Amino acid sequence: MSPFFSSRWVEVPDWVREDAAGGLPAGFRAAGVAAGLKPSGGTDVGLLVSDAAETTSAARFTRSGVLAAPVLVTRERSRLDALRVVVANSGNANAATGGRGLDDAAKMQGAAAMAGGVQADQVAVASTGVIGVPLDSRAVVSGLARARSELRPDGDADFAAAIMTTDAFEKRASLEVDLAGGTVRLCAQAKGAGMISPSFATMLCFVQTDAALSADTADLLLGVCLKRSFERISVDGQLSTNDTAILMCSGAGGVTVQAESEDELRFGQALDALLRQLALAVVRDGEGARRIGRVVVRGGHGESVEGAARAVANSPLVKAALHGGDPNWGRIVQAVGMALPGTAPLAVDVGIEGVQVCARGGAIGFDAKALAQAVARDEVEYVVELPGEGQETEVFFSDLSHEYVTINAEYTT
Amino acid sequence: MSPFFSSRWVEVPDWVREDAAGGLPAGFRAAGVAAGLKPSGGTDVGLLVSDAAETTSAARFTRSGVLAAPVLVTRERSRLDALRVVVANSGNANAATGGRGLDDAAKMQGAAAMAGGVQADQVAVASTGVIGVPLDSRAVVSGLARARSELRPDGDADFAAAIMTTDAFEKRASLEVDLAGGTVRLCAQAKGAGMISPSFATMLCFVQTDAALSADTADLLLGVCLKRSFERISVDGQLSTNDTAILMCSGAGGVTVQAESEDELRFGQALDALLRQLALAVVRDGEGARRIGRVVVRGGHGESVEGAARAVANSPLVKAALHGGDPNWGRIVQAVGMALPGTAPLAVDVGIEGVQVCARGGAIGFDAKALAQAVARDEVEYVVELPGEGQETEVFFSDLSHEYVTINAEYTT
Repeated sequence: MSPFFSSRWVEVPDWVREDAAGGLPAGFRAAGVAAGLKPSGGTDVGLLVSDAAETTSAARFTRSGVLAAPVLVTRERSRLDALRVVVANSGNANAATGGRGLDDAAKMQGAAAMAGGVQADQVAVASTGVIGVPLDSRAVVSGLARARSELRPDGDADFAAAIMTTDAFEKRASLEVDLAGGTVRLCAQAKGAGMISPSFATMLCFVQTDAALSADTADLLLGVCLKRSFERISVDGQLSTNDTAILMCSGAGGVTVQAESEDELRFGQALDALLRQLALAVVRDGEGARRIGRVVVRGGHGESVEGAARAVANSPLVKAALHGGDPNWGRIVQAVGMALPGTAPLAVDVGIEGVQVCARGGAIGFDAKALAQAVARDEVEYVVELPGEGQETEVFFSDLSHEYVTINAEYTT
Repeated sequence: MSPFFSSRWVEVPDWVREDAAGGLPAGFRAAGVAAGLKPSGGTDVGLLVSDAAETTSAARFTRSGVLAAPVLVTRERSRLDALRVVVANSGNANAATGGRGLDDAAKMQGAAAMAGGVQADQVAVASTGVIGVPLDSRAVVSGLARARSELRPDGDADFAAAIMTTDAFEKRASLEVDLAGGTVRLCAQAKGAGMISPSFATMLCFVQTDAALSADTADLLLGVCLKRSFERISVDGQLSTNDTAILMCSGAGGVTVQAESEDELRFGQALDALLRQLALAVVRDGEGARRIGRVVVRGGHGESVEGAARAVANSPLVKAALHGGDPNWGRIVQAVGMALPGTAPLAVDVGIEGVQVCARGGAIGFDAKALAQAVARDEVEYVVELPGEGQETEVFFSDLSHEYVTINAEYTT
């Protein structure tokens, strides 16, 4: 059993394995330094560089109406299909910082371009941390000068450390993927623990491969895989101002993944497993969380499954019950009802870990002791079946704990 | 200063005052007994009766797709414009209880009709408590036999106690309202602390007056006043399966409130103040809550104010910051951005307790010490101004505390 792929909810293809040696794919170097943005003095500025001139990329950003300056700068000024450098900082989100924030993000972009030896429009800028406080871009820029000299092929651990905020553990993987054309490497570094209900991505997620993909193929695969991973998780239902996901393909390994080939499928399934497990790691590291729930909703009409699944996943009552190992299925039914006004009486079925607790909207007898044991495990699955021939969806969510309250009652002060 | 009207956010008309003597308006009697539904042995079955044959009424219910049996029975089988009896129990919501639940609610209705000496279709049934557990209607029926012999004009305190669940304090008022035609009395009993995000009402709210109103007038006034009170609060964003609000008018005081008269306006303003203060009491008693937030959103386009206000009020990050007295206004901006996707860059202004902290989407300098003191008070007001000529709305919300987690992690087990 792989230490990275730890969830029963991720299917790991036979052709994917962890790379014990770690480190970045061919063509990439990274570093992380302490620039003084975090009061703790921890690592807070990360630099990731692809040395391959023909690197392709794809990117996705938060859909929030309030976009952080780095998101605006990257989205508007960078060539999203040809990114070669990522500069990221933690300790300050550079969000709601007005014109000065845009200047600061632009300064980060310029300094990182110099550090990486590329044009400014090949640099993606990302920030995470407190909102509404001006960023000390001078500190970031001097940090970048040091980071440049520390760029290493195995610098991904330092880079991952530089993007962490309230994360309790790092989210990072180095994989080998066997394709028909040869073995390629696939790595990722992500961060996120609170303010997590991404439309596109978690707070920050960076993925690298040494395979050669066209920018269109990279964009297609990233979009499809994000829909099954970071778009299906919620820690607290809060969409961030800074969510960014970037896939970079250096091609330095010499293996090309053609569009609509068998290898595209194999690579895509590897990326899917990688992002799904990373997304689950973000949920597991949900601020104060100790277990993960998965709600599956089937049936209904049109889009009703989506609303019902989100309502369950974001219900503080369901999340507190998950925290307490309380098989209070009435709250599942209540959340579904809230999402589907005007449908009463709703003949909903509910099962928890395979134990049916509600049939056609009414309570039925079940083995309470077996259920109590099932809901005390690390992962708890809820299945809701609505009348109708609709779709099926899933949302992963964390529990709501005392620690979440502690962390978020005292974050800025 | 009145002990009931305690919030600066409620305007109390000159012609409204608390009735120190308490008790119900003329024509009403009530009782509450312990029937064994609550494990604590507390009062759990309430009976409210109007002895006036010509009593008019109005009612509103939750919009959830999962309706509790008492809501279905009352909505489908009762004359909502001529209700004379309310039977309510706590300790069990009789929700998600299938066909048996409907039978149990019907039994309650029949027994209460006998106890009150009215037809079954003049009885409203209400339940609150755990979802998905069959109701012991036999216990309720024997409780009703006792409650009948204990009906008293000053039984409103016992009735109010019988509908409490996780409420930390009772929500009850007896008012006198001076109209041109004479003085009328206006009383209410409400309950609610968790699963509060009513579309129409809180969990349960019962209002009585000895004024004579046509059923149409009662319906109009109840609808308008609920929109400004219970429809504007959120403890945890969770719409209940059981929300019920009922206004009953006995006419036994001899004063008639004509439609479209000056007295209708005066009576309506009294009802508005009453329901608004009761709604705020529910927020203040939000499970584990210790303070109340009010978010006002102005401007925008069309319905955007509503989504933005709800997003702020239901954000666990905003609520945890309110709990900790943390002036973390970045979370206000983040929540607004989440509610208004695709509008970036959004020139939003934010003020907290009169201190402007964000102008046109960017941080501005402010007196951090003054702000920290302001957000530590019992009531904290956030004003969000969006670009545009839209509407204005408000939502009241509780903070998110450790006690909320404790209460809801261990409710059924």
